[in-house]
Amino acid sequence: MKQLTIIKIGGNIVDDPIALEQFLIKFNQIPAPKILIHGGGVMASEMAKKLGIETKMYNGKRITDFETLKMVTMVYAGWINKYIIAKLQQIGCNSIGLSGADCNIVPATRRSPEPVDFGYVGDVNPSKINNGIIINFLGRGICPVFCAITHDQNGSLLNTNADTMASSIAIAMSKDYSTKLIYCFEKEGVLYNQEDPDSIIPLITHKRYIELQNEGKISGGMIPKLDNAFAAIENGVSEVYIKHAKNLENDRQTLIK
Amino acid sequence: MKQLTIIKIGGNIVDDPIALEQFLIKFNQIPAPKILIHGGGVMASEMAKKLGIETKMYNGKRITDFETLKMVTMVYAGWINKYIIAKLQQIGCNSIGLSGADCNIVPATRRSPEPVDFGYVGDVNPSKINNGIIINFLGRGICPVFCAITHDQNGSLLNTNADTMASSIAIAMSKDYSTKLIYCFEKEGVLYNQEDPDSIIPLITHKRYIELQNEGKISGGMIPKLDNAFAAIENGVSEVYIKHAKNLENDRQTLIK
Repeated sequence: MKQLTIIKIGGNIVDDPIALEQFLIKFNQIPAPKILIHGGGVMASEMAKKLGIETKMYNGKRITDFETLKMVTMVYAGWINKYIIAKLQQIGCNSIGLSGADCNIVPATRRSPEPVDFGYVGDVNPSKINNGIIINFLGRGICPVFCAITHDQNGSLLNTNADTMASSIAIAMSKDYSTKLIYCFEKEGVLYNQEDPDSIIPLITHKRYIELQNEGKISGGMIPKLDNAFAAIENGVSEVYIKHAKNLENDRQTLIK
Repeated sequence: MKQLTIIKIGGNIVDDPIALEQFLIKFNQIPAPKILIHGGGVMASEMAKKLGIETKMYNGKRITDFETLKMVTMVYAGWINKYIIAKLQQIGCNSIGLSGADCNIVPATRRSPEPVDFGYVGDVNPSKINNGIIINFLGRGICPVFCAITHDQNGSLLNTNADTMASSIAIAMSKDYSTKLIYCFEKEGVLYNQEDPDSIIPLITHKRYIELQNEGKISGGMIPKLDNAFAAIENGVSEVYIKHAKNLENDRQTLIK
């Protein structure tokens, strides 16, 4: 099967113009076909503050009321997405900025308001992704760049977790491509010792993941990220990497397999 | 040649959720292929105010500094564009939201800073528009929805006049389609007497346009709109209409020919 590389970048890259520019140059050197998925949490929090929107969180997850939905759509689908496209076009990477609503590529289901109402938050079922549209873009040498805004097919946009957006798209694409998913992270991989940046765990299998959790070596925000990584591996994605964007071209990383 | 309908809507529709929903239902009934182009000035002015960005105007034209560019890209390419897409998907119109940077469809040139520096403002040369991408979408039954954000191919996004965006795309498409361009306007057409909403001028030819200007019957913001309309007619577009969105399905309008 043909190879496909999917990279997800978060706030530590998209909020920093210099880091973003350096990343995009490296991204451009990766052989096509490829897909970029971006988050952008810090900028959204700043914009919320400027607009006087209270940032409501529950267990580290943003609660998206209508004003917050409007703001994240402006920040993610508007400025960040189109800024990335303009920068990619400049360096010769023909790209298209997309939300999940465009061509109905990523339909989502609004999360149940029970037990906690997260508001306009969408969960994605990878089997519902319209990957034919993505395949068409890739076949024409166009690089899709997704923000993590989806829709419910009933007229509402929905805010979606960018890590989940990335794993869902990777799962959907793995039917047609041998898919490699790279999560660019603030750290250089999954660390065995949070105090030691060199303690990168080179390989985590599902068995090792359970052990590491039992040892208390993996906790907090790393658990949903690794859950997304294992969901990808268990549903057809060939390899998942967790690494820092600055190490895109070398092997300093955690391989999830 | 195959028919193509291109409709431009402005602030009076996009700023009003009920008017927008009514318009989109009518838009959905127009036979494909079709293209929608939207502005959104009022919402941008409100957002500028909320963010403490001073709205600088010169002769009725917005001056776009970097903070304003960021804000209009958020409002136009982000919220308005994706909101329209979600609403169109709901009623079964498969659509894709685009800026001019996406797939480099509408490259633009930053306007000369002499005599007035309008900042990040882009002028479009219709002959540079990559209409092959648009034709591909139309051929697959996908309706492109453009905001008036373009780029300079050198890494900068640019703010573009939405009327000019519409006429430029219409001109580019008229090489392959018999193209009808409809400007949806706050009034029901070009009025002979501004005080009389029934004094719609049914037809304006270029000769009549000059006469009307000499008679002082056309002035202010109507002049750039009609200049765009005549630029379209003189460069291959078959018909241009100026009308109110509520009259989309009837003949209450001004035909420019």
